[in-house]
Amino acid sequence: MPTAAEREAQAKAAIEAAKAPPVEDFKPSSLNQKGKDFPAVNSERRIRARVVAPDAHSVALDIGAVKYPLTKGEDGAWVGASIPQDAGFHYYQIVVDGAQVPDPNSLYFYGASRWGSGVEVPATDQDFYALKNVPHGQLRETPFYSKRSDAVLRCFVYTPPDYEKNPAKRYPVLYLQHGGGEDETGWGSQGKTGLIMDNLIAAGKTKPFIIVMASSYVPGAQMGPPRPPAPAAQPGAATRPAGAGGMPRFNFSAFERVLLDELIPFVDANFRTQADQLHRAMAGLSMGGMQTKQITLANLDKFSHIGIFSGGSIASSDITDIDGFKKSVKLVFVSYGSRERGATGKTNVEALQQAGVKSVFYESPDTAHEWLSWRRSLYQFAPLLFQE
Amino acid sequence: MPTAAEREAQAKAAIEAAKAPPVEDFKPSSLNQKGKDFPAVNSERRIRARVVAPDAHSVALDIGAVKYPLTKGEDGAWVGASIPQDAGFHYYQIVVDGAQVPDPNSLYFYGASRWGSGVEVPATDQDFYALKNVPHGQLRETPFYSKRSDAVLRCFVYTPPDYEKNPAKRYPVLYLQHGGGEDETGWGSQGKTGLIMDNLIAAGKTKPFIIVMASSYVPGAQMGPPRPPAPAAQPGAATRPAGAGGMPRFNFSAFERVLLDELIPFVDANFRTQADQLHRAMAGLSMGGMQTKQITLANLDKFSHIGIFSGGSIASSDITDIDGFKKSVKLVFVSYGSRERGATGKTNVEALQQAGVKSVFYESPDTAHEWLSWRRSLYQFAPLLFQE
Repeated sequence: MPTAAEREAQAKAAIEAAKAPPVEDFKPSSLNQKGKDFPAVNSERRIRARVVAPDAHSVALDIGAVKYPLTKGEDGAWVGASIPQDAGFHYYQIVVDGAQVPDPNSLYFYGASRWGSGVEVPATDQDFYALKNVPHGQLRETPFYSKRSDAVLRCFVYTPPDYEKNPAKRYPVLYLQHGGGEDETGWGSQGKTGLIMDNLIAAGKTKPFIIVMASSYVPGAQMGPPRPPAPAAQPGAATRPAGAGGMPRFNFSAFERVLLDELIPFVDANFRTQADQLHRAMAGLSMGGMQTKQITLANLDKFSHIGIFSGGSIASSDITDIDGFKKSVKLVFVSYGSRERGATGKTNVEALQQAGVKSVFYESPDTAHEWLSWRRSLYQFAPLLFQE
Repeated sequence: MPTAAEREAQAKAAIEAAKAPPVEDFKPSSLNQKGKDFPAVNSERRIRARVVAPDAHSVALDIGAVKYPLTKGEDGAWVGASIPQDAGFHYYQIVVDGAQVPDPNSLYFYGASRWGSGVEVPATDQDFYALKNVPHGQLRETPFYSKRSDAVLRCFVYTPPDYEKNPAKRYPVLYLQHGGGEDETGWGSQGKTGLIMDNLIAAGKTKPFIIVMASSYVPGAQMGPPRPPAPAAQPGAATRPAGAGGMPRFNFSAFERVLLDELIPFVDANFRTQADQLHRAMAGLSMGGMQTKQITLANLDKFSHIGIFSGGSIASSDITDIDGFKKSVKLVFVSYGSRERGATGKTNVEALQQAGVKSVFYESPDTAHEWLSWRRSLYQFAPLLFQE
């Protein structure tokens, strides 16, 4: 992890590099509000923002941990561009005289513990999450009562395109978790889960299944530090006590209980699921991956397929009964962006393979701890599910 | 309609009145982001905003057509309060040195042609849209292909709580339209349609039915002026040519074709509907009410129940064949907020009653052209539907 001084130096270098005139082939981001031409992205993957702030003294585009100063034009609009960004989705914000605010031009997404701006940089493989004229599933906003929280919570449930047509057909279920500072909207919105699944199903590449996306922030329960550090590739990191290796201990038990005692029974009672271990998977990104690891390992009678995206991995030492594990678990899938530290994850996957566990490692090219890594991970993971 | 000078005078008076110290019993708005204490509402229904903008020279709370200047505190946060607002939902924004931006503290809603802040003032009757532990329906984000637009569009479909349980049961359908500058998210979000219906159904006050919420802004089609003026209570206003009476002509025909030729067939093919005129209703607010009037009157073989919320009314002179109308139409419902000009609507409803048409007029107390008027309208309208 870079130090504060290193980050500051990187930011200064980025601001300097951003002074180079960009190639003038900007196109509006696909995540802009109707009729808005900015932010825009060029062929260098640089982002240009434009913000009307006639009386401001300073306006910045805050993206990728760099605050790029914008320049005021005669029309009162401030304009400027970043250095090249990775392909895919990026959270960002605008800073107007010290006020950190959403860009009025973009759509909004929940991440970094707030609703804020998002910008999309085209990717060479973006076709797999494109909006196409294929049969579409439905993303259902589904309230459910949690006795533990004494509150009505909300999850989003993706049902595949043929769900309405076959009233007798039952489906496997994937429980798919967001990352730290995100919520139940993340996978459906930033993650483009519905589009990814619709396209995979239309191409016959995956078995249709239901996806349940809930928030792991259970009301009234303290999970751990509000900003989980980027997970290093340390197996079992979530369970080490603070101080030993420096990783704070997360307590996912409140969500584990809501998931197992309330959400899964609710889903099985209200959707046509195949309600058994063989047909139930869990996956998650970042903190959601850590939760997936912790919860599945403690409940192998409930989950048969495990996906950990940028959230650690399962080491042989995490498994107490390898024979039981091999019987129960049909898949362990571990993924990272290429710019993350996936080496230990890869090693752990190979060790599981050698132990006879079906285990897959995937590395997303040229991406970091960001949503394109996770869209691609879902795209790779889904076709492997429920094959037995 | 007030003149520009009148509006400016009203704004000045409001800013002056807002200098009076508020009662210090502020509570956070129920539409704030997680963990945010502002904006907050007190027992006088005044709204207090707090925005961190350390280097700004001026920050304002822009609500109800008044820009209230906020005052900077020593902590760099700007604070201030409005005069009392009506009960219910209000769009608003923050202005930081001339930059019109969403408040980083609130949730966001699509209205006034942009995603922006919303604040909720408690209402004495708010129980009917409260989130309760009753059986809940699902709000389904549903893509559908429009050949006319050559695009995949999106609608939201509310299915009632027992929809999943009764695979043989079929349901009537209400097509429910948003207002100008809004979209397909309005009724489900600002309108709290799901909660209103869940509560009515739990109380046995309405027949369960499906609600389809689509955007009437068809891609590529020009509907009319981007900012429809507040509809005066003029019957048939939507069809008068510009110049005659001053009301610009709206052209809803593109949406009419998408609705009739594409959306209704899609809904009937993909949901368990009772796909006939007797079991199909249409309603809308403001511009959506104008569209409802225009489209239903031209297609009485398709719709049997009509709801126009703050969007005009049906005069006897709008009906060419009164006997046919009385046979086809089971309900004409017209509503206004008490602060709007509903007199002509009321008169028109009475005339229809005298002609033997089942017609209902509803006035929402102490509300203007705003969402509480329309939540209440839906709450009054729903129990009257599909009674035959």
